[in-house]
Amino acid sequence: MRDDPARPFEIGLFTFGEITADPVTGRPIDPAVRLREFIDLAVIADEAGLDAFGVGEHHRSDFAIASPPVVLAAVAQATERIRLTSTVTVLSTADPVKVFEDFTAVDLISGGRAEITAGRGAYTESFPLFGHDLADYDELFDEKLGLLLQLNRHERITWSSQHRPPLVDAGIYPRPVQPEIPVWVAVGGTPASVVRAGRHGLALYLAILGQPERFRPLADLYRRAGADAGHEPDRLRVGVTSHFYIEPTSQGARDTFLPVLLALHRPQHARRS
Amino acid sequence: MRDDPARPFEIGLFTFGEITADPVTGRPIDPAVRLREFIDLAVIADEAGLDAFGVGEHHRSDFAIASPPVVLAAVAQATERIRLTSTVTVLSTADPVKVFEDFTAVDLISGGRAEITAGRGAYTESFPLFGHDLADYDELFDEKLGLLLQLNRHERITWSSQHRPPLVDAGIYPRPVQPEIPVWVAVGGTPASVVRAGRHGLALYLAILGQPERFRPLADLYRRAGADAGHEPDRLRVGVTSHFYIEPTSQGARDTFLPVLLALHRPQHARRS
Repeated sequence: MRDDPARPFEIGLFTFGEITADPVTGRPIDPAVRLREFIDLAVIADEAGLDAFGVGEHHRSDFAIASPPVVLAAVAQATERIRLTSTVTVLSTADPVKVFEDFTAVDLISGGRAEITAGRGAYTESFPLFGHDLADYDELFDEKLGLLLQLNRHERITWSSQHRPPLVDAGIYPRPVQPEIPVWVAVGGTPASVVRAGRHGLALYLAILGQPERFRPLADLYRRAGADAGHEPDRLRVGVTSHFYIEPTSQGARDTFLPVLLALHRPQHARRS
Repeated sequence: MRDDPARPFEIGLFTFGEITADPVTGRPIDPAVRLREFIDLAVIADEAGLDAFGVGEHHRSDFAIASPPVVLAAVAQATERIRLTSTVTVLSTADPVKVFEDFTAVDLISGGRAEITAGRGAYTESFPLFGHDLADYDELFDEKLGLLLQLNRHERITWSSQHRPPLVDAGIYPRPVQPEIPVWVAVGGTPASVVRAGRHGLALYLAILGQPERFRPLADLYRRAGADAGHEPDRLRVGVTSHFYIEPTSQGARDTFLPVLLALHRPQHARRS
């Protein structure tokens, strides 16, 4: 579908899985109820022909999802065509071997619909939880992204790096349905991060929480870095995320959502070009 | 159901997820096809009123499942009542925080049907893969079981041990539906392991791959260790596993399965008392 010239872009629904207390009643939202809502939402998105559904990873009391691939496996079972991704996998504090194994399971269950969106993490609670030092914030991501890409491309691997025990001719099994699980890199606005994504020839998500126009130079920088590294322009795909809310009329949507938008961060809308 | 005196035992179906080559055609089995078969099998087991469905963890080319909780989430989505467990989670080489988070996601998706069966691992391929030393085989399990039980019982935790970075007043979120995720310990025949399960007051699986009568003394030892540690007899539950095959007639089943049984290890049958 993504390679169909009649459809130059794709649309997806992403959520971080917030369970922030209901602003009206003050009651916290039950994470089990919230997860059922997400699965129902994914089914509707799948039936409507949307292209991707994503769930975020957090390790905090105000979020319902700490394990994106586990939640995506339930979504895979409930849907037929929609692609499934993390938004994002906090790769800096994860083990790439475990990430690859978990998303391979999603890929096998979904018939080849899994994707991984890797990020350094906008929140930092996973660093102390998994024994990592925030001082290594960027180095951790760089190293673990490198390993993840190798695991994706090679059935057997020898690897040695700073923050992960070495692998000596290790076989990673089972293998996914897709020849490689697509890996996107999500970036909040750091120029060095878009250059890294371009250099690796990985698709890029720009997480637009502020003014969209601020991100145009980053997309340009990404495409330049990708071209300099010898990657074909077709491979250098850019996705953008923004808040999303829908109602029968645009005025109604504006009246309902604008006040909420100013106060809360809820499910996100993604557009890939 | 387990506390119903009219049903003194429960029955489940467990699989290790083998994809050993078809003994007739010699063709390897596609892991994606195998996973669909397991999910279909779990649906049938659920509809038939069986009590538990379990999947094993291996990291080898002849097994389809490296991530039990991811597969169990798809099973959760496809089923209504059956309880979902790992058979086993190789806790020695896993991070208990990740294990708890992953199974919490299964618990939330399934409406409180998740269980964890922890084991030291009959195979050892996960030790080099996750950077652990086989010399620490038992110590790793002991330490990680201790942490898992604490995570299960306390929302915030301070923890320090040999083989895992420390946790300082760390909150683990989201929390499961069940007050605690039931933890079973699976034992292959090591007396010290059944004593440990009894001491913790954890339910015990005896993995019977040889003569059943050899395991009776282990069950007795377990119950004695549990009683000595002050646990109520009701809490000291014993499950046993054996191969399982069914056909319309017992003679037909014997004729078909006995030759296969001698050559292969396929889905297992569990009986809990």
